Amino acid sequence: MEEKKILLQCDYTQGCHENIMKALIDTNLVQTNGYGFDEYCESAKKKIKERLKNDNVDIYFVITGTSTNQIVISSILRPYEGVLTVESGHINVHETGAIETTGHKVIVITKELKLTSQMIENYLIQQINDKLNIHVVQAKLVYLSLPTENGLLYSKNELEKIYEVCKKYNIYLFIDGARLSYGLSSLKNDIKFEDLPNLCDVFYIGGTKCGALFGEAIVISNNDIKKNFGFNIKLRGALLAKGRLLGIQFNELFNDDIYFKIGKNAVDLALYLKNELIKKGIQFYVDSYTNQQFPIITKEKYNEITQKFEVSKWSEDNEFVTIRVCTSWATTKEIIEQFLNMF
Amino acid sequence: MEEKKILLQCDYTQGCHENIMKALIDTNLVQTNGYGFDEYCESAKKKIKERLKNDNVDIYFVITGTSTNQIVISSILRPYEGVLTVESGHINVHETGAIETTGHKVIVITKELKLTSQMIENYLIQQINDKLNIHVVQAKLVYLSLPTENGLLYSKNELEKIYEVCKKYNIYLFIDGARLSYGLSSLKNDIKFEDLPNLCDVFYIGGTKCGALFGEAIVISNNDIKKNFGFNIKLRGALLAKGRLLGIQFNELFNDDIYFKIGKNAVDLALYLKNELIKKGIQFYVDSYTNQQFPIITKEKYNEITQKFEVSKWSEDNEFVTIRVCTSWATTKEIIEQFLNMF
Amino acid sequence: MEEKKILLQCDYTQGCHENIMKALIDTNLVQTNGYGFDEYCESAKKKIKERLKNDNVDIYFVITGTSTNQIVISSILRPYEGVLTVESGHINVHETGAIETTGHKVIVITKELKLTSQMIENYLIQQINDKLNIHVVQAKLVYLSLPTENGLLYSKNELEKIYEVCKKYNIYLFIDGARLSYGLSSLKNDIKFEDLPNLCDVFYIGGTKCGALFGEAIVISNNDIKKNFGFNIKLRGALLAKGRLLGIQFNELFNDDIYFKIGKNAVDLALYLKNELIKKGIQFYVDSYTNQQFPIITKEKYNEITQKFEVSKWSEDNEFVTIRVCTSWATTKEIIEQFLNMF
Amino acid sequence: MEEKKILLQCDYTQGCHENIMKALIDTNLVQTNGYGFDEYCESAKKKIKERLKNDNVDIYFVITGTSTNQIVISSILRPYEGVLTVESGHINVHETGAIETTGHKVIVITKELKLTSQMIENYLIQQINDKLNIHVVQAKLVYLSLPTENGLLYSKNELEKIYEVCKKYNIYLFIDGARLSYGLSSLKNDIKFEDLPNLCDVFYIGGTKCGALFGEAIVISNNDIKKNFGFNIKLRGALLAKGRLLGIQFNELFNDDIYFKIGKNAVDLALYLKNELIKKGIQFYVDSYTNQQFPIITKEKYNEITQKFEVSKWSEDNEFVTIRVCTSWATTKEIIEQFLNMF
Repeated sequence: MEEKKILLQCDYTQGCHENIMKALIDTNLVQTNGYGFDEYCESAKKKIKERLKNDNVDIYFVITGTSTNQIVISSILRPYEGVLTVESGHINVHETGAIETTGHKVIVITKELKLTSQMIENYLIQQINDKLNIHVVQAKLVYLSLPTENGLLYSKNELEKIYEVCKKYNIYLFIDGARLSYGLSSLKNDIKFEDLPNLCDVFYIGGTKCGALFGEAIVISNNDIKKNFGFNIKLRGALLAKGRLLGIQFNELFNDDIYFKIGKNAVDLALYLKNELIKKGIQFYVDSYTNQQFPIITKEKYNEITQKFEVSKWSEDNEFVTIRVCTSWATTKEIIEQFLNMF
Repeated sequence: MEEKKILLQCDYTQGCHENIMKALIDTNLVQTNGYGFDEYCESAKKKIKERLKNDNVDIYFVITGTSTNQIVISSILRPYEGVLTVESGHINVHETGAIETTGHKVIVITKELKLTSQMIENYLIQQINDKLNIHVVQAKLVYLSLPTENGLLYSKNELEKIYEVCKKYNIYLFIDGARLSYGLSSLKNDIKFEDLPNLCDVFYIGGTKCGALFGEAIVISNNDIKKNFGFNIKLRGALLAKGRLLGIQFNELFNDDIYFKIGKNAVDLALYLKNELIKKGIQFYVDSYTNQQFPIITKEKYNEITQKFEVSKWSEDNEFVTIRVCTSWATTKEIIEQFLNMF
Repeated sequence: MEEKKILLQCDYTQGCHENIMKALIDTNLVQTNGYGFDEYCESAKKKIKERLKNDNVDIYFVITGTSTNQIVISSILRPYEGVLTVESGHINVHETGAIETTGHKVIVITKELKLTSQMIENYLIQQINDKLNIHVVQAKLVYLSLPTENGLLYSKNELEKIYEVCKKYNIYLFIDGARLSYGLSSLKNDIKFEDLPNLCDVFYIGGTKCGALFGEAIVISNNDIKKNFGFNIKLRGALLAKGRLLGIQFNELFNDDIYFKIGKNAVDLALYLKNELIKKGIQFYVDSYTNQQFPIITKEKYNEITQKFEVSKWSEDNEFVTIRVCTSWATTKEIIEQFLNMF
Repeated sequence: MEEKKILLQCDYTQGCHENIMKALIDTNLVQTNGYGFDEYCESAKKKIKERLKNDNVDIYFVITGTSTNQIVISSILRPYEGVLTVESGHINVHETGAIETTGHKVIVITKELKLTSQMIENYLIQQINDKLNIHVVQAKLVYLSLPTENGLLYSKNELEKIYEVCKKYNIYLFIDGARLSYGLSSLKNDIKFEDLPNLCDVFYIGGTKCGALFGEAIVISNNDIKKNFGFNIKLRGALLAKGRLLGIQFNELFNDDIYFKIGKNAVDLALYLKNELIKKGIQFYVDSYTNQQFPIITKEKYNEITQKFEVSKWSEDNEFVTIRVCTSWATTKEIIEQFLNMF
């Protein structure tokens, strides 16, 4: 029966961290105003600002990652403007056109898995030089994920150079942090949480994949983007009546650094899995140091594993299948050992 | 301190029914697939279909009411089509343009609080006769709320006549059931839950205001609307990664008719409040038999009450204030007594 | 045969002023760059600026009035903002949802035929005071037509007061001048052409109904609206490859004040018609001093007239029909006499 | 002075064919109804149907090519659907996001300059097999240009195979014929005009670049697409008040096969230019048999030529510039000789 399989295909197969569940129980009958105008949201925003050592950011809670991307991007761009990304960017491939439905082109500038400052600058120089430019969508925003859709990290230096180019050409930078916890907790990461407001104009702290039932926290550091931002949340259908639920959850995630501890546990398990598989001679699609690992296995092995485990099929050829295996805040070492025992 | 006031201004000030909370706790670490492809969603759909005595409907769970309206309406209409409603219709006044943002006009055909089949027919006859009609948005959908934004009910006969006109002119009927529990539980209501699929093309069962933390269940009975409906949920940002949360909640709401019991309790308390205030000589804006009551009180009394209670100010003139008082699944008789003691 | 009727139902039944036709013939084989980057467009812009005695405006030529309204409004508004108008506003009733298709609500604030500064201020005060305002579309632009859809004029003082309120509440004012020539040429008009840039943020000079084959000239006086405006024209499909056609036409319309002379002739004939009908005891729907007249005639008379003339049916009851009769740049006194002979 | 250069950079630098100008003069003061409900439009539609030997198509006239693409694509697609094209497709690169502004993704499936049936089928198979497909825009329409953006032709057999795949997977095929005259008139072309309704669901006959002042004729053969199509024209701002202007022009273009004669003259001159340059050892970017030619010349030669001629710079490297040279209905052999004398 499919229900009995152990699910490793993604990082949102289970509910929430126990502290969050406890807080939801404790506050269940407390009365609050709706739409995020409540004390839990206030408290959660305060905690995040303190952890960022930055009081000049605006914070908004939104229910889903798709909404977050849609809201941030459509609130920034004017009708003739578009957003730059890599071909594998989440907004390009896995949002059913959620960005285009707001009227904006997703401009793919590379098949590489990561953007570089040079790619962006080259594109913008061409845009400026193009004599036909009234016929061309104007790039006004760069979108990247930290970690990327394939588990890769940007170094602090890489982000600094990207942001520098953005500022030089007067365009914005938005960092999708759906798996931010798993990125910042990686041993290869050199970006501090409190660096983020200085490395981009707006980013979001993913909750759904990092310990919450659902919810993402948008952090806006650039004043240009702040004005009337909340209206965009409502008009895109993403304003929760019981907005407190988002405040309660982020309040717990930023209590005692739970958000980062969750990430560390997941990444440690992912790297343990990676290293053990390497020892067994397995090769990987990319050299990921986050919670997503992409081993390349034989079709035979794939068929064997998927009797017991659900994994994502990333790509395949005649002989091999590249799979995605994800750990999460809830993954245990025992499960990873069971998985490794299949090899 | 504002926090200490008792909140009666709306029906979403508290968490969720205890059965739901229990189910969320019990299932928290169970693994499921994402996006609503899980056993809880399957079970909840099955229960709703059984309660509707109808196996031919399609059911989808969505997070917010705004998203629900946006998704249903934009999935039905072609670019040149619009949706008919009353001036006070939720989609006209309280969605920050969420319908227009999908490209469609909200066509107001009356200042009355309820639609009638005659109003709709008159409008459609005029639309057909209008020689300039290539310049006019074509009405293709009727939107109404049950109960309405002001707590009013439609009788079964009224809905039958409205739906008949819709079918006659080949347009669709969509019923917003954000407060459906409180409508169907009213002693003045003569519509059975299982009548609904036969009284319209699509409706939704409100969870957010009726016992759930969040969530609405869309029920589609017209086959024209069913095809590929799920894509619309994703592209509007309303597809929950942990979709099971919606399944778990509706599973409980439709266990042992909790959904309707919740409604009955709230409506009983609202009518108790109404009748007691009438005895004290208070007049009402409308004659509501649902969980929303609109007493008209003096400004003095308003100032006095709002020291202890939060209520919605609906309108005011020099002397009087019309307020909205809402009961909910969580309201107790004790609270209502305290409120009545202010008079 | 319908083809033989004399058409008085609108002001766009014939081609263009003879000077324009001559210029089109003369320039036909001249080579120019596309998209409005040509010497005729430059010259026409220069002439309009001179006639406005204002060098600080930006001017753009667009093909249709619908596009013009769509482009101006959607370029100004952010996603959660809407445009205020009267119920009979062209953008509300005769654009097949062209404004909503760009994502914005058309907010109707009165059933009156003209806006007043007081109406606008009342609406904006309510908007600011509304505690629920995150749920409400924010008015950011006022739209009015000069003359109105029903041939009425605004006085200079009325416009000054409206614009003052707009500036006080930090919203924009857009004047639709589809029939501007017929408005400014009216003997009851006290607005000078060169006043317009100071009476609003953006307006347009209608060509289609005032002597051109097609084309409208957008004049932007507020710097906020100028930036990158041209991109909006292209993305809405309204950038003519042979943009010179618009320049050539406006060049002629603003040669020797032809634009205003055309208007005067049409208005003189309309007022002659009006006065003669008044002498015959005919009543009028509104007291128009522009090229559109709305006599109220018996059904019998309507049936008689429409054997020979095409007129617009504006409304009707059991006994009477209100018709619209339009003169234009091409109407002759002879035709008006023929029409009057029917009474 | 730039004005004195001879313009060869595009095919819309001059007015219209003399027959059209004559018809515009002759009809200028004739009265007709607006919006295309006139005898000239009727006549033009009749002529096109006769030339197509097909009475079952619906024909609509639209002002610009961008509008045409926008209207056809947005009228066909539902919100979650997208349109397939090559990377160099006009809708992908030169419409300032006009397709995305209607809410739809332009899905690029190849960097090649032409689509093949195999590419389309591969993409659609992957779309069907993709387990995550609720997260992916659904391709529902194929867009291609005949000739392409780079002057290439599709053979009848290539189009037949593409259309077969479209029908197999239940998606539509739309052919952009902005330069149709120059494609069908090529000696290498084996498609007859009357084949087109059977080779796709909808196509358009370009007027702007092929002898008209402006205007494109949309021809719809698939009944699914016909219903209420006209409303889309109005809501996108592309319905000309004096719609007759489009009828008058297409009436002339399809009189005595002028449309095809124009094309032949332009293509003959383009091939003369091509062959002469080949004799002089010049290489070409693509092997075009239509009115657009793309010689690759040295930077030195480029600088020399552009003293006298305006050409489009298509791309460049350190040594060479690829230029676009266009002939049109108005190009003379004398001009081409002058151009050739530069080599």
